Amino acid sequence: MNIRFFNARILTMVDGEDIFEGELWVKGNKIAYIGEAKETKESWDKEIDCQKNLLMPGFKNVHTHSGMTAFRSLADDLNLQDWLNNMIFPREAVMTGEDVYWLTKLAILEYLTTGVTLIADMYLTPETILEACDEMGMRCEMVSGLNKFGPTVEVMEHRYNDLNGKSPLVGFKMGVHAEYTCDKSLLKEVSELIHHYKAPLYVHMSETKTEVDECRIRYSMSPVAFFDSLGLWDFGGCIYHGVWCDDHDMEILKKRGVSVVSNPGSNTKLASGIAPISKYLEKGILVSLGTDGPSSNNCLDMFREMFLVTGLAKLKEMDPKAVAADEVLKMACVNGALSLDHKDCSDLSVGKFADIIMIDLKQPNMQPILNIPKNIVYSGSKSNIKMTMIDGKILYMNGQFLEADADIIYEKCAEITERLKDI
Amino acid sequence: MNIRFFNARILTMVDGEDIFEGELWVKGNKIAYIGEAKETKESWDKEIDCQKNLLMPGFKNVHTHSGMTAFRSLADDLNLQDWLNNMIFPREAVMTGEDVYWLTKLAILEYLTTGVTLIADMYLTPETILEACDEMGMRCEMVSGLNKFGPTVEVMEHRYNDLNGKSPLVGFKMGVHAEYTCDKSLLKEVSELIHHYKAPLYVHMSETKTEVDECRIRYSMSPVAFFDSLGLWDFGGCIYHGVWCDDHDMEILKKRGVSVVSNPGSNTKLASGIAPISKYLEKGILVSLGTDGPSSNNCLDMFREMFLVTGLAKLKEMDPKAVAADEVLKMACVNGALSLDHKDCSDLSVGKFADIIMIDLKQPNMQPILNIPKNIVYSGSKSNIKMTMIDGKILYMNGQFLEADADIIYEKCAEITERLKDI
Repeated sequence: MNIRFFNARILTMVDGEDIFEGELWVKGNKIAYIGEAKETKESWDKEIDCQKNLLMPGFKNVHTHSGMTAFRSLADDLNLQDWLNNMIFPREAVMTGEDVYWLTKLAILEYLTTGVTLIADMYLTPETILEACDEMGMRCEMVSGLNKFGPTVEVMEHRYNDLNGKSPLVGFKMGVHAEYTCDKSLLKEVSELIHHYKAPLYVHMSETKTEVDECRIRYSMSPVAFFDSLGLWDFGGCIYHGVWCDDHDMEILKKRGVSVVSNPGSNTKLASGIAPISKYLEKGILVSLGTDGPSSNNCLDMFREMFLVTGLAKLKEMDPKAVAADEVLKMACVNGALSLDHKDCSDLSVGKFADIIMIDLKQPNMQPILNIPKNIVYSGSKSNIKMTMIDGKILYMNGQFLEADADIIYEKCAEITERLKDI
Repeated sequence: MNIRFFNARILTMVDGEDIFEGELWVKGNKIAYIGEAKETKESWDKEIDCQKNLLMPGFKNVHTHSGMTAFRSLADDLNLQDWLNNMIFPREAVMTGEDVYWLTKLAILEYLTTGVTLIADMYLTPETILEACDEMGMRCEMVSGLNKFGPTVEVMEHRYNDLNGKSPLVGFKMGVHAEYTCDKSLLKEVSELIHHYKAPLYVHMSETKTEVDECRIRYSMSPVAFFDSLGLWDFGGCIYHGVWCDDHDMEILKKRGVSVVSNPGSNTKLASGIAPISKYLEKGILVSLGTDGPSSNNCLDMFREMFLVTGLAKLKEMDPKAVAADEVLKMACVNGALSLDHKDCSDLSVGKFADIIMIDLKQPNMQPILNIPKNIVYSGSKSNIKMTMIDGKILYMNGQFLEADADIIYEKCAEITERLKDI
């Protein structure tokens, strides 16, 4: 499809570019032109009058467990250990690949409503997650959640080779669940594998104080330092959460090119703590955003994460100047893509994938229009997402899912959660 | 208008009542029936199939400065003093009553999108705020923001007598801006007046640590204790913010029947701190919610406040069990009404005002439907507000404002903010 968006405000998120009025052309799955209004004799499948609403790059939700939609509102206001051991693990034990397929589809609907065009998903059955994303048109990097309970390093290697390239929309990254769910011997095997493939590593790390304290007891090192001692950062990678990193950890992250995905909604609801975002930024560590799974957050809403990542930093430092809005938008749009080696969709530039959202500026929370980036970060809401396009396809527009039947997905997920509820 | 809602889920918020399926009748501006589906020969102006979506009492936003929509995104990421002295005060000095009228209308549009059916507004020109609320159908208690720069106690008394009862939708409460903007002599005059009228008092209090520290230097007492020493709580009332109250303050609040309006969005963005919500609840102090003004928050979104009031409590106490979802819903719907002596719209009961919202459960963030109150508090969004009815009138439905022309309001506010921007 060739689509022309005209009469738009455009925020490319290319460094240093201001918002301007003009048009944007999509040819196939790529951006073909961005600039001032222009005469053209091209033939278009669709011409969309943006009515001065804003086109910008989609949000990247780079840490989530989509299939946990099954547990939304099932297990809140609980201690972490109660939550995991009594509510989550017994149910995950009986979930099938097909369950995960439908539950992931439910999450994808929600991502579309909040303008997410790329996710990094860590959950039980990567094959059926791939299927769900592929069918619904969601760009996704699956991340291995390897741990001592399963699967094996061999399975991870097989998936790495098998799933990467299987679909143009979906990739697979090497990862482990966390330090505390892996033995040292297993981590050494993982280190060999990432050295063989020169692959970055993705992992939950420094989410809670307990986790860091216990690692120090086990290895006399923080989790970040321990992983470094095993060479696990030799090709970079990413830590999820990073709430409790100290200065020494940050030096390692910076030196190894490891980025941090902050999940402020989850860290708030689970009372994990507030990540030292300003310090990461000072040290030049790349920070991006994730919602975490819908059982811990519980919503998959990038606007919540954007407000919280700056709001909590302000509270932590008792400084209303902490983490300005422009920085937050960069985390949500650009940095998330970079953390997954996805420069191909990090901003709106000619030749990049057409992963584009339209922000409805004609809603009261976006008025007056004095500073659009601040409006988005401080008063924005997913109700402002007028359109979500991924890979050149409009998947969501004016509250409607154009390529999915939401009612069927709700029904399937209701059946699954009914079955899992009373386990 | 007589309106019948059928095929609904209903959450009355009457203590102890669970969600049930049934119908609700509105006759004129009151609720006439709530219960199971029922045969009726009545003639209806409108019959609405709720398609199993949820009817519940509207949210009460009991601390805001609606007219500050003029300053949204104009002055963020600044120190409080810079913000007030350089950005806000010079502009407020040139704002007219008509400006406030239009700017309030803009805020009302936003309240409707987030299911707010009652506000308590403290801003410059109560007369034109009343006009805006009355025309748009918003239930509002205006609160005097008296301080040493104006207006006089006589003006407050005149407004109390003149504006109360002028419109069935709008009332006027006695209040002062804050301890630090009033001299002791002025507060004594106010105390005489509230004793004369036996009126509760509303005031910003214990918002920042500096405010409390400076009051202790001035009077050797906290602001709460100082006001108590002047008899200002003799007829109850309400403090806005209450971030820095200590145990002694809480004893006074409890004893005097003074409630707390928490504004977690504003306290976060301005880095004021986290209010001790769990302690208030333990001590039996009534807590309700407000957005504060759109220049400090910056959005007027009750879903943000609901998530934050529990999320920040969890973080403050490092306890994911702090302030459970049911308690939060009570703050947002019931307690706000009680804090303004508005039992007539605190829940859905026969004979109360028809201030009702419909929550769209057929959106992905509300699925699966395992626990609706938790869905609302933890994963809800204003995009789930399908309808807002105030005083028996449907003002907002399916994203449309039925009684207001949003474009005209946007245009007027754009003119005003353009004029004020470069002052």
